Amino acid sequence: MKKPLVGIIMGSDSDLPVMKEAAKVLEDFGVEYEMTIVSAHRTPERMVKYAKEAEERGIEVIIAGAGGAAHLPGMVASISNLPVIGVPVKTSSLNGLDSLLSIVQMPAGVPVATVAINNAKNAGILAAEILGVKYPEIRKKIAEYKERMKNEVEEKAKELEEAGYKEYLKRRQDG
Amino acid sequence: MKKPLVGIIMGSDSDLPVMKEAAKVLEDFGVEYEMTIVSAHRTPERMVKYAKEAEERGIEVIIAGAGGAAHLPGMVASISNLPVIGVPVKTSSLNGLDSLLSIVQMPAGVPVATVAINNAKNAGILAAEILGVKYPEIRKKIAEYKERMKNEVEEKAKELEEAGYKEYLKRRQDG
Amino acid sequence: MKKPLVGIIMGSDSDLPVMKEAAKVLEDFGVEYEMTIVSAHRTPERMVKYAKEAEERGIEVIIAGAGGAAHLPGMVASISNLPVIGVPVKTSSLNGLDSLLSIVQMPAGVPVATVAINNAKNAGILAAEILGVKYPEIRKKIAEYKERMKNEVEEKAKELEEAGYKEYLKRRQDG
Amino acid sequence: MKKPLVGIIMGSDSDLPVMKEAAKVLEDFGVEYEMTIVSAHRTPERMVKYAKEAEERGIEVIIAGAGGAAHLPGMVASISNLPVIGVPVKTSSLNGLDSLLSIVQMPAGVPVATVAINNAKNAGILAAEILGVKYPEIRKKIAEYKERMKNEVEEKAKELEEAGYKEYLKRRQDG
Amino acid sequence: MKKPLVGIIMGSDSDLPVMKEAAKVLEDFGVEYEMTIVSAHRTPERMVKYAKEAEERGIEVIIAGAGGAAHLPGMVASISNLPVIGVPVKTSSLNGLDSLLSIVQMPAGVPVATVAINNAKNAGILAAEILGVKYPEIRKKIAEYKERMKNEVEEKAKELEEAGYKEYLKRRQDG
Amino acid sequence: MKKPLVGIIMGSDSDLPVMKEAAKVLEDFGVEYEMTIVSAHRTPERMVKYAKEAEERGIEVIIAGAGGAAHLPGMVASISNLPVIGVPVKTSSLNGLDSLLSIVQMPAGVPVATVAINNAKNAGILAAEILGVKYPEIRKKIAEYKERMKNEVEEKAKELEEAGYKEYLKRRQDG
Amino acid sequence: MKKPLVGIIMGSDSDLPVMKEAAKVLEDFGVEYEMTIVSAHRTPERMVKYAKEAEERGIEVIIAGAGGAAHLPGMVASISNLPVIGVPVKTSSLNGLDSLLSIVQMPAGVPVATVAINNAKNAGILAAEILGVKYPEIRKKIAEYKERMKNEVEEKAKELEEAGYKEYLKRRQDG
Amino acid sequence: MKKPLVGIIMGSDSDLPVMKEAAKVLEDFGVEYEMTIVSAHRTPERMVKYAKEAEERGIEVIIAGAGGAAHLPGMVASISNLPVIGVPVKTSSLNGLDSLLSIVQMPAGVPVATVAINNAKNAGILAAEILGVKYPEIRKKIAEYKERMKNEVEEKAKELEEAGYKEYLKRRQDG
Repeated sequence: MKKPLVGIIMGSDSDLPVMKEAAKVLEDFGVEYEMTIVSAHRTPERMVKYAKEAEERGIEVIIAGAGGAAHLPGMVASISNLPVIGVPVKTSSLNGLDSLLSIVQMPAGVPVATVAINNAKNAGILAAEILGVKYPEIRKKIAEYKERMKNEVEEKAKELEEAGYKEYLKRRQDG
Repeated sequence: MKKPLVGIIMGSDSDLPVMKEAAKVLEDFGVEYEMTIVSAHRTPERMVKYAKEAEERGIEVIIAGAGGAAHLPGMVASISNLPVIGVPVKTSSLNGLDSLLSIVQMPAGVPVATVAINNAKNAGILAAEILGVKYPEIRKKIAEYKERMKNEVEEKAKELEEAGYKEYLKRRQDG
Repeated sequence: MKKPLVGIIMGSDSDLPVMKEAAKVLEDFGVEYEMTIVSAHRTPERMVKYAKEAEERGIEVIIAGAGGAAHLPGMVASISNLPVIGVPVKTSSLNGLDSLLSIVQMPAGVPVATVAINNAKNAGILAAEILGVKYPEIRKKIAEYKERMKNEVEEKAKELEEAGYKEYLKRRQDG
Repeated sequence: MKKPLVGIIMGSDSDLPVMKEAAKVLEDFGVEYEMTIVSAHRTPERMVKYAKEAEERGIEVIIAGAGGAAHLPGMVASISNLPVIGVPVKTSSLNGLDSLLSIVQMPAGVPVATVAINNAKNAGILAAEILGVKYPEIRKKIAEYKERMKNEVEEKAKELEEAGYKEYLKRRQDG
Repeated sequence: MKKPLVGIIMGSDSDLPVMKEAAKVLEDFGVEYEMTIVSAHRTPERMVKYAKEAEERGIEVIIAGAGGAAHLPGMVASISNLPVIGVPVKTSSLNGLDSLLSIVQMPAGVPVATVAINNAKNAGILAAEILGVKYPEIRKKIAEYKERMKNEVEEKAKELEEAGYKEYLKRRQDG
Repeated sequence: MKKPLVGIIMGSDSDLPVMKEAAKVLEDFGVEYEMTIVSAHRTPERMVKYAKEAEERGIEVIIAGAGGAAHLPGMVASISNLPVIGVPVKTSSLNGLDSLLSIVQMPAGVPVATVAINNAKNAGILAAEILGVKYPEIRKKIAEYKERMKNEVEEKAKELEEAGYKEYLKRRQDG
Repeated sequence: MKKPLVGIIMGSDSDLPVMKEAAKVLEDFGVEYEMTIVSAHRTPERMVKYAKEAEERGIEVIIAGAGGAAHLPGMVASISNLPVIGVPVKTSSLNGLDSLLSIVQMPAGVPVATVAINNAKNAGILAAEILGVKYPEIRKKIAEYKERMKNEVEEKAKELEEAGYKEYLKRRQDG
Repeated sequence: MKKPLVGIIMGSDSDLPVMKEAAKVLEDFGVEYEMTIVSAHRTPERMVKYAKEAEERGIEVIIAGAGGAAHLPGMVASISNLPVIGVPVKTSSLNGLDSLLSIVQMPAGVPVATVAINNAKNAGILAAEILGVKYPEIRKKIAEYKERMKNEVEEKAKELEEAGYKEYLKRRQDG
């Protein structure tokens, strides 16, 4: 087995249904990853240890997801020299606006590469784009992925143009 | 000199003009405090060390101020068993709403006792109220402080009632 | 029976499903509490009486929960010299942002120790941390609680690492 | 001197530059008023006393202004049976959104008639409209006031139409 | 039948499930009202006519509910000399924040007495409080209503204190 | 078949249940339209091509709907000289506030005519109003539509006035 | 003199420094306009009259600017069959978010073509784009305007690339 | 001269005082960059060309700053396969909340690595962290930079601890 290049961490296993999308897209791209739970607030020492050792274990990009007063991405970014991607997880009361601001509004000196609320899939793609700087074969995967997206939209567009919206929606409902 | 009971920390010396109000009110109450800079993001190890050692050094309450993606209060609260008071410092872009949400929206298990944006004075008073649980002489200071506040309002009220608003405002402008 | 140290009050019995979590965590810590309904708006005299008498009845910390234009925590804090913890209860229209701002944005002189929206559990833990300043046995409970939280996260982390996210999620769904 | 019909209260004399506009408009309408400082948080007993005694002293409408976690209007409304008009005073950090939500989002049973942020003038006009239900001469003043407003707009409109915007703005700058 | 004193209007019959609470509380107080649909946007002439004629038909207070870009309360207030109470109706996308700001943020000269989002009950109570300025029997109803509210809270408080939260919640669930 | 005058485009077929309302209202008005999927982010070249060619194909107004970081309306407006109407589609996390700001806050030089969140029906009506500048028969349709809306409100108003709210709501529930 | 095609109206002459930008850009395009003050709240009858008569006077597009609870654009749109462009004017307390929501969140049936906060220039351009549907010479002006914008950006880009940012900024400061 | 690895682009030269901080930090790290103006809205073809050609010209990371309905970062990310960092530039009305949401809330498939409002310095650091995946000498610079930040905080902390806050602030004022 190849060593993982991406570390996917999250503050709680309740974030897993969101964060698994980062794993899935990396699997699609053939990028090795590791995935675990690291809570800034409940396991601060584990968090420090993870952030300190990730680089020497061969991790090249870290994806960190958390919700509410979401400190995990920023704290890992403060300790590690690796690029850290933050995923704001949607919360029940403030819908993830709290998570977003807690992750993106980092002070000068310690950036977190923040993606949209709950959009762990984009965190996986961004990790691949970052690795694509070094690994041409991963960048090629990105290009192919974008081509596939384009084709899917164009096929749907063609179907909508030909069938009309009533028939198009009917097919999906029947589907 | 008596040992400090309150630790006042802040993420940057740019927070000092706000955070000094906590120190001032503790001075008024005769409560010993220490004050220093501890950045969660720029000095994570110093932060861990501070949070771990505060209790054994005799600190009984920690006041932590920070702005933006404000992680200092929550991280210190995750490491220490002491009550931690968080002061959201106003920011230039989002006016401190980011600081407030980053501090108050802590996950279950790790509370931060949050006060109003930029209201370090209230953090000092809250620290005194908490110490008042243990030290009757500090609680007495709180009672006296509230009495003073009441008297000040009543004096102003009397002046406004007697002088009318035009004269009252004129006196303040003439200063 | 020992005298209660913590008073848990709420503006309406509709807040009880949220506020009971404060009671539960205090039960876990072996801290005596009392719990009742005190509405700032519908029973203002009862509120004044409660806030005035709490200290002499031996209460050392007050937890107050309310929603919308949530005035209970701040009004109790204005009358009593005890530390008051405010729990912003989630509302149907503004999701508790109104409750949060009504509780946390107190003017200089009268702090409320505010916790996250609906997070009465954290209010209970914060009450215990405050009592821990005076009662070493309660602080010890806090330390043990944090240790338990840490262990739970580490066990889940281990399971996720070993089983992978598909198996981990499957077990929860089957569970 | 006639007895005042309107009580104008505010949480702090720092609200006076805003709240004086309510007094001014009542003077324009020839409605007697009283004005004083009553802080829900710093003088809770004074607040209770004011709210309880206003009706028997002949006050028929109360205007209450406050900022931040603005509890004065709601608390007075909970104690008195008079209609209470709330003026959310603009705050430095959240621009009065906190004041607005703290005043307007009252629970069922205790309404506060809320006007726009910092718009104490409208509180004065609303008080006059309410008194106009009982006193025809005050309603007549409202009608005349609206007529004056209309005429002012129409005169300015005519000037703008005739002079053009460049000349119109130039006159104001030179003015 | 007595002539109605309160006019309850709303922008759409989809607001009726919210606005009927104003009618109910006026029925409780024995205050005559009329209720109809008047859309500022879809029936502007009807709106102008309603606002112009309400006073001469004997209406003394108008309650107007609307959602989104809610112009009905403000437009009626601009045309009529009666006090106008605005009810911001909750919307599906912005939860009524749009309705609230569209109603409360009126310019100087034309106040709308705004209540909480969806809180038509409070609009009814406020209307009664305003009428209470003129009609002592209505003010007496307000006082009785507040007394009833107080008693209900005190009974629930007593039950909660005696039964404990587990039993209290169990009874409601079984209820 | 007549050539379409309105182009309705959307970023994804998931926007179709919202955007179809624009098509429906244009059908009601007898205005020819075309409808397809054009993603600014997934098919940028297709988007450029669509925006460039729309005018020469005879399209006179473009309606573009998108959600989140909604770039489609603004990008099409930057490339085409036609008036572009933007429909902010509601999102799961921020309820469409992100879509609204991404569409309406265009820089000087490139306007997008923005309608309410999810209100594609209004986009269709606005398109017809714009075409009404050129085509008198379409403006006539607008006038008739407004008359129909007015009549519907007046009928409902009459029914509510005569039947009362209880009977009115009962009929809808039974309906 | 040719008859004006665009009516620019605003709720108050305090909006004129913002709204004059719409006039300026129409002058640039050689489009005749008229400009006046029409307050929905202070001159409701004038507003109804303006909206009713605009079409027959030959106006083809209306631009309406207002701030706070901004009802002018929506009310004019409800009365007239012409396309109405709304300009949300920035407010001192809520920065124009209230104006934006009051204008854009119109109910189904009555659209307002909303542009960015304070962006009256874009309102002028949008009016020209709408007129361009009918008048080819105005559309040509739009195309030329876009070409000029493009050239200006490209010239600045070239200067920045050649001079570097230090020199570029220095030149602007020396101005 | 070495070929630039980072492309810094912005929507307008008014963004330059913010965006120059990205250039400065890259200069500090010895990373070659190019900087120009590319407006998504005013120069869409130039934008497409830039995004398409950046990779083949040797650019490895793109930093894009824009304000308001900020489409530049997202559009470049949709066209290029390179990692794109977005800088939300603060706006006068909504303080950059519009810019932030327009940049960060990208749909699945096209991520933008978003940093804090106006924090172009962090965009530069993040670009260096991304390049550090490939170039060990750049990662070393990051490590040194973090070390310097740490030392600066520790020196200030020491000075504050020794001098006290009054003296510390006095020195800065005299400075």
